[in-house]
Amino acid sequence: MYSFRNDYSEGTHPKVLQALTDTNLEQTVGYGRDPRCQSAAALIRDLCKAPEADIHFLVGGTQANLVVINAFLQSYEAVIAAHTGHVNVHETGAIEATGHKVCTAFAPDGKLTPALVESVVKAHPDEHMVLPRIVYISDSTEIGTIYTKAELTALRRCCDEHGLYLFLDGARLGSALTSPENDLTLEDIAALTDVFYIGGTKNGLLFGEALVLSNKMPKAHFRWHMKQRGAMLAKGRLLGIQFQAILEDGLYFDIARHANEMAFRLRDGVAALGYPFPVASPTNQQFPVLPNAVIRRLEDRGYAFEAQDAVDADHTCVRFVTSWATPESAIDAFLKDLADCR
Amino acid sequence: MYSFRNDYSEGTHPKVLQALTDTNLEQTVGYGRDPRCQSAAALIRDLCKAPEADIHFLVGGTQANLVVINAFLQSYEAVIAAHTGHVNVHETGAIEATGHKVCTAFAPDGKLTPALVESVVKAHPDEHMVLPRIVYISDSTEIGTIYTKAELTALRRCCDEHGLYLFLDGARLGSALTSPENDLTLEDIAALTDVFYIGGTKNGLLFGEALVLSNKMPKAHFRWHMKQRGAMLAKGRLLGIQFQAILEDGLYFDIARHANEMAFRLRDGVAALGYPFPVASPTNQQFPVLPNAVIRRLEDRGYAFEAQDAVDADHTCVRFVTSWATPESAIDAFLKDLADCR
Amino acid sequence: MYSFRNDYSEGTHPKVLQALTDTNLEQTVGYGRDPRCQSAAALIRDLCKAPEADIHFLVGGTQANLVVINAFLQSYEAVIAAHTGHVNVHETGAIEATGHKVCTAFAPDGKLTPALVESVVKAHPDEHMVLPRIVYISDSTEIGTIYTKAELTALRRCCDEHGLYLFLDGARLGSALTSPENDLTLEDIAALTDVFYIGGTKNGLLFGEALVLSNKMPKAHFRWHMKQRGAMLAKGRLLGIQFQAILEDGLYFDIARHANEMAFRLRDGVAALGYPFPVASPTNQQFPVLPNAVIRRLEDRGYAFEAQDAVDADHTCVRFVTSWATPESAIDAFLKDLADCR
Amino acid sequence: MYSFRNDYSEGTHPKVLQALTDTNLEQTVGYGRDPRCQSAAALIRDLCKAPEADIHFLVGGTQANLVVINAFLQSYEAVIAAHTGHVNVHETGAIEATGHKVCTAFAPDGKLTPALVESVVKAHPDEHMVLPRIVYISDSTEIGTIYTKAELTALRRCCDEHGLYLFLDGARLGSALTSPENDLTLEDIAALTDVFYIGGTKNGLLFGEALVLSNKMPKAHFRWHMKQRGAMLAKGRLLGIQFQAILEDGLYFDIARHANEMAFRLRDGVAALGYPFPVASPTNQQFPVLPNAVIRRLEDRGYAFEAQDAVDADHTCVRFVTSWATPESAIDAFLKDLADCR
Repeated sequence: MYSFRNDYSEGTHPKVLQALTDTNLEQTVGYGRDPRCQSAAALIRDLCKAPEADIHFLVGGTQANLVVINAFLQSYEAVIAAHTGHVNVHETGAIEATGHKVCTAFAPDGKLTPALVESVVKAHPDEHMVLPRIVYISDSTEIGTIYTKAELTALRRCCDEHGLYLFLDGARLGSALTSPENDLTLEDIAALTDVFYIGGTKNGLLFGEALVLSNKMPKAHFRWHMKQRGAMLAKGRLLGIQFQAILEDGLYFDIARHANEMAFRLRDGVAALGYPFPVASPTNQQFPVLPNAVIRRLEDRGYAFEAQDAVDADHTCVRFVTSWATPESAIDAFLKDLADCR
Repeated sequence: MYSFRNDYSEGTHPKVLQALTDTNLEQTVGYGRDPRCQSAAALIRDLCKAPEADIHFLVGGTQANLVVINAFLQSYEAVIAAHTGHVNVHETGAIEATGHKVCTAFAPDGKLTPALVESVVKAHPDEHMVLPRIVYISDSTEIGTIYTKAELTALRRCCDEHGLYLFLDGARLGSALTSPENDLTLEDIAALTDVFYIGGTKNGLLFGEALVLSNKMPKAHFRWHMKQRGAMLAKGRLLGIQFQAILEDGLYFDIARHANEMAFRLRDGVAALGYPFPVASPTNQQFPVLPNAVIRRLEDRGYAFEAQDAVDADHTCVRFVTSWATPESAIDAFLKDLADCR
Repeated sequence: MYSFRNDYSEGTHPKVLQALTDTNLEQTVGYGRDPRCQSAAALIRDLCKAPEADIHFLVGGTQANLVVINAFLQSYEAVIAAHTGHVNVHETGAIEATGHKVCTAFAPDGKLTPALVESVVKAHPDEHMVLPRIVYISDSTEIGTIYTKAELTALRRCCDEHGLYLFLDGARLGSALTSPENDLTLEDIAALTDVFYIGGTKNGLLFGEALVLSNKMPKAHFRWHMKQRGAMLAKGRLLGIQFQAILEDGLYFDIARHANEMAFRLRDGVAALGYPFPVASPTNQQFPVLPNAVIRRLEDRGYAFEAQDAVDADHTCVRFVTSWATPESAIDAFLKDLADCR
Repeated sequence: MYSFRNDYSEGTHPKVLQALTDTNLEQTVGYGRDPRCQSAAALIRDLCKAPEADIHFLVGGTQANLVVINAFLQSYEAVIAAHTGHVNVHETGAIEATGHKVCTAFAPDGKLTPALVESVVKAHPDEHMVLPRIVYISDSTEIGTIYTKAELTALRRCCDEHGLYLFLDGARLGSALTSPENDLTLEDIAALTDVFYIGGTKNGLLFGEALVLSNKMPKAHFRWHMKQRGAMLAKGRLLGIQFQAILEDGLYFDIARHANEMAFRLRDGVAALGYPFPVASPTNQQFPVLPNAVIRRLEDRGYAFEAQDAVDADHTCVRFVTSWATPESAIDAFLKDLADCR
């Protein structure tokens, strides 16, 4: 009936589609040098209160991660990530394919801490090991958790102490910033990280990640890095048009909030049926443990969602993801079916 | 007034936009495993009469080139390209960034021949040199020329003799196949090459290149290569939808033919004014030599186009590119202005 | 007084030096194509009872590891290693610098098992993850332990089941094969692995690792891989001459056995003084836990050795390594000093 | 009878062998941190009058080239080399395997000039092309020619103007500096380049290249680069000992001068027999054109040398290389045989 597989199951928000339609026959220069990208970049600098930041638009997350990480590392330098980090497990070695090691720390809640970062730094003292240089975090994380302002500030301080860059993967930043537990703003994130991106693909665009490079970074040749990795879209304006449409009046946050609310409605309904959630997620990904028999019955009824981990021979932790497009009715119908499937 | 800078100055053909609009709220799985991509792939296999080919959809040309070349080369293997080849000069070392050398042959008309290929092969006899393994050609080429069936057949034979793969970059394949001088079909190209792509970005799509891998290639893990390079679009269906819309009733060829016709109208008008064309191009890129003073006057009137080469202190070879969207009126207005600017 | 820092503190065994001297003015072709390398290769094939194996001589271990691993992996493929594996921590990301991820399993005794290998394989099911393809093990391991024939046979079976290559890093193979607990032969290792090397640097040569590639491997272009990584020695014969000298009459094993015996003498003496050894090592590396105050006193007396791990605020697990050149008198003098330093 | 194939056909100069023998049983720390390397480094800084230079010892030329070039380039940066440059053709794509393009200029005499360098720089104006950053030259070049002080000074000025590094491959620096046509000193080269090396492999060592990094370079992590590429020798002292022995009393230059003299004796004798030399070489490589029939007869008599280029169906340009070990008698015997073979 309904797919909770991910937050990029549909096309794009109607307002974005309208903006693409309205500008379709305009002629512009290519590769992101057009007025549409310039306007969107100016808007993002405003929203982030980061007038000196460089803004670049990329098509997808793996692309953004590999371009950023490679751009700011020397050959012998490495990334520090949580063991759950997207760059560690879910990108087919994209970072390593640019020549860099991903050093991991075991982070049960998907979040890095200064202590975890320092444990990695200390294990790499000399030229016989890589030199960790970028701290990679995701907000929200791969398991739905989010960073508080205190936590992000502590990481910033830790990075400064050890000469590390702080890179925040914001593929699901909308969901994080509109979580009821969130106390961070775009402005905070721009101030506390060295580079981050505002995810569009997972929050209502056809595609697109808006990268914000703080003023402290070596930025002059970033476009060379993009082009070299095939990450410069010929009709770059498509990215500018979409981000302008979704950011200009707060739509980005409105639809992210909707996705969260649908997730909480689902979470509360599932919990009411007695199923446990090992990790509490305040965002649009929810991870209940269901009996395998129930999972099979739901799949027979046409529901789609992904297995996260086998818990035991009879139970699996599964992942439900809601999106800007998820209707309340789909949640309610699902909960009814779930009750039936017990 | 009008930009002849390239063939990706506008958005997309209205029929494509309509197809994206019509399917916008469908839910599908991601990463190109959806029914829309499957339909488009089936259509392409039909058009190519290549029932066993694998079809993959990528966002752009540099991405397609680097993924394909890296996928089919061992670390010590290299590409053979014309000195004008896009992979040699215009991709910021994207191929080398995957670890592979681009070996070039000087090709005044932008086309490789068996003799040129063999000269490179002979210069690389042992383990102290790279081993050339893929022959990279473009059709139409970077300077507008096209391959005949006899020429492509001869290259195929040369590749077979030397154990080489033949890869055709079809970023402008529509323009090539609808050129009045063309005698190749999609079917021929599928039969004569090992891998090629049908370019969408430069022929009316928002973006997209449809890759056709012949049955002889080691294809099982091609998706791993795509993902590793950030070349797998989350909402992969966008590619399937667009290619389906443009290919299903010959629209792809109709609009390419239009672009060519506009180019010829421009060429004939420019030639009638006495300006020479050092390389004869039967496709949608035209390269006249204009006096620098004339170029400045045209730019003052708002025309945009690119310089190709300085011919002497007072003359420059420039590039005019027409597209599916170029109106006849724009050509006529330009020619009138060009006459005025003498 | 004496350095127990490593097994490559001295030059080379006198017999090897003599062989280099005797052949010094011979003229030979370069890059390992000379008769001296051919003789040494023939001898190694005999010793391994592997008449179809390819033998290559490399200068050092990191070089051997990176050339072998990159040679046998496709871009999207990865290595499986123990978390203690040399390629994981002690090679400055050399493997990642060739584009490949090192997937690790936690192995308290430094040894991989089929269960550990399978846990990694299962965690990498599709194109969103790398594909593990080579199992990397060391014998003796980085913490002195060794594989039994039963263990290596089980790993071979596991590799066959999952389509994996088995690569044995034999930097300290001499010490492993002459350990009193060893039941493997060179012949076993050649039969059970796909590729391994006989370490020379850590067992009496100036430098050199002799690589044995089994007949099942794709070997035709291995020299291309070597050259590309700067791993082909111009005066390649130096490697052939050294291996011939050390292997032809069993000297390789005699001197490895000596190193082991010195290590056991040291181990027994240290244990007799009451210091614990958390991991039992039957080879030439020994890892006792000493009080930090004792360590400082030993260092004041001029002894050199490396810290392995901090155990608590007052104790450190240290590493003592003996070599072909360690005299019994050095052990005895050390033990006397250690007793004094309590 | 005699091999003129290259200048690394023999082992090492007896004085070097003696030094290795004398120090054989010393214990030192590994990886080039030992007192022997420190002494040799101090000596080289003195000889170069470059008290702030960093000195590193590497085993071979391809290794040195790939480590240096990769260490000083960002991912999108490239090398400029003569088309004959060793890094372009004879290293199996070693530079590209580290991710960097080699941009070539056609240099008939094997030497780059400011005009050639600038032609490459101008062809790479923006982010769609690589950014040339290192100028790679060899002295003596791959075809035996050498740079004058005026030429090197002009290149230095050109590099400064364009923000380029100047890297001199000194694999055959001994032969260049002792050429009768040379007016450069080690001191000049240290002052005019950013990084260069003093080649040992081709001038009497078993192996070894001594790298001199000028004070202006970002040098702090060079050892990380070396280790990552497998270019840090475990018994690093072997390099220090050899360079000390050959450099401390001018032996390096004496034996290079001898090699040159043998080459001139050979050249003059061959020319007296009427054979032409298309490129005049003032160093230890000589390139006469011989009839193929004569070549076959010489080979039948046991002489070895390499073919450089086919001149026509009946003639080949061949390469004769002399070394520190070439006896005058070998030249005279060869010339006699050559006269016989007409």
